[in-house]
Amino acid sequence: MNVQSYPSKLLETAVEEFSKFPGIGRRSALRLVLHLLRQDIEDVDSFTRAITDLGHNVKYCRVCNNISDTDTCGICSSPHRDAGLICVVESIKEVMMIESTHQFNGLYHVLGGVISPMEGIGPADLSIEKLVDRVNQGGVREVIMALSATTEGDTTNFYIFKKLKDKPVLFSTLARGVAFGDELEFTDEVTLGRAILNRVKFDASIPG
Amino acid sequence: MNVQSYPSKLLETAVEEFSKFPGIGRRSALRLVLHLLRQDIEDVDSFTRAITDLGHNVKYCRVCNNISDTDTCGICSSPHRDAGLICVVESIKEVMMIESTHQFNGLYHVLGGVISPMEGIGPADLSIEKLVDRVNQGGVREVIMALSATTEGDTTNFYIFKKLKDKPVLFSTLARGVAFGDELEFTDEVTLGRAILNRVKFDASIPG
Repeated sequence: MNVQSYPSKLLETAVEEFSKFPGIGRRSALRLVLHLLRQDIEDVDSFTRAITDLGHNVKYCRVCNNISDTDTCGICSSPHRDAGLICVVESIKEVMMIESTHQFNGLYHVLGGVISPMEGIGPADLSIEKLVDRVNQGGVREVIMALSATTEGDTTNFYIFKKLKDKPVLFSTLARGVAFGDELEFTDEVTLGRAILNRVKFDASIPG
Repeated sequence: MNVQSYPSKLLETAVEEFSKFPGIGRRSALRLVLHLLRQDIEDVDSFTRAITDLGHNVKYCRVCNNISDTDTCGICSSPHRDAGLICVVESIKEVMMIESTHQFNGLYHVLGGVISPMEGIGPADLSIEKLVDRVNQGGVREVIMALSATTEGDTTNFYIFKKLKDKPVLFSTLARGVAFGDELEFTDEVTLGRAILNRVKFDASIPG
């Protein structure tokens, strides 16, 4: 469908705004806007109010940069979390993903991205100095790098490793290998090769 | 990903609002909200302003119900359109689709849906009386029904046909048949059967 000629400028502006989102083309944007038009005006207002509230009042934890309604986030201020472990992630999305695994009880550090010369993101654009400061303050036993398994993630791992290598702190990364449930037939060679090199002793006590 | 525990109430509310859209689950909603968080506050404000503007100031053409910035839409008020033809459609989306074909030079009538007992939509919920009024005012030669080729669309066609059958007006529907570019192998039996019954004389002068 060619939707270049809109019957209303207001409609066109709203569709243009929606199509700025990643993965939303003009056609999907129009569908979303027409859905809004079918709602009561109170529902439209409650939608825009939620976005405005978030945009204007969002806070980020002063310790770990995670999104938060308070100056220090619930994780950083919890007495039940292990402050000796810092898990370094790209964004708040990965914090939510790791939290939902219930496998990690330490704190986080949200970098705000990974080093990517292609996208013009250098070390200074990420909160790496703040991470080094946290380690320098002491009490941190281990820094766990949980970045994407990409060249950019590896570059960032290496950069931060160099920054921390003289500190009395263990530096680890996520295990890489065959994903749970994956069939070997469809596993790529690099992953399979590294999974063989980094094979682990079979332990019948660990399920899966 | 289980995203039940949000680090921020503001974030959660915004995600909930986005996931009210059809086809947008919690995970996509979170992705959209995180995209907004990466934008400048001016861009967030311009997004919400466009939605608010549309919601509060949207007008519908007093003649055809199409969305419009003026009391009478650009199509209904154009001296270049044939006011003797009325194409009846479900929503403004179909107006835009038909306009983009450049094959129709008449006016429209937006019903606001189709008769659907399953969804509790009866004839009184649609602007059918207004259509009958337009025909009664005279000057209309033909009413073209351009509704979906579904049971609901057919029911609505039949209901409106009964309302108009004593008026001096031609009543037509969109041609149904094999879609342009479709392979017969993958065409359903009902469509294929009707396409054979309603076969047309081959005319080499019409491309395609």
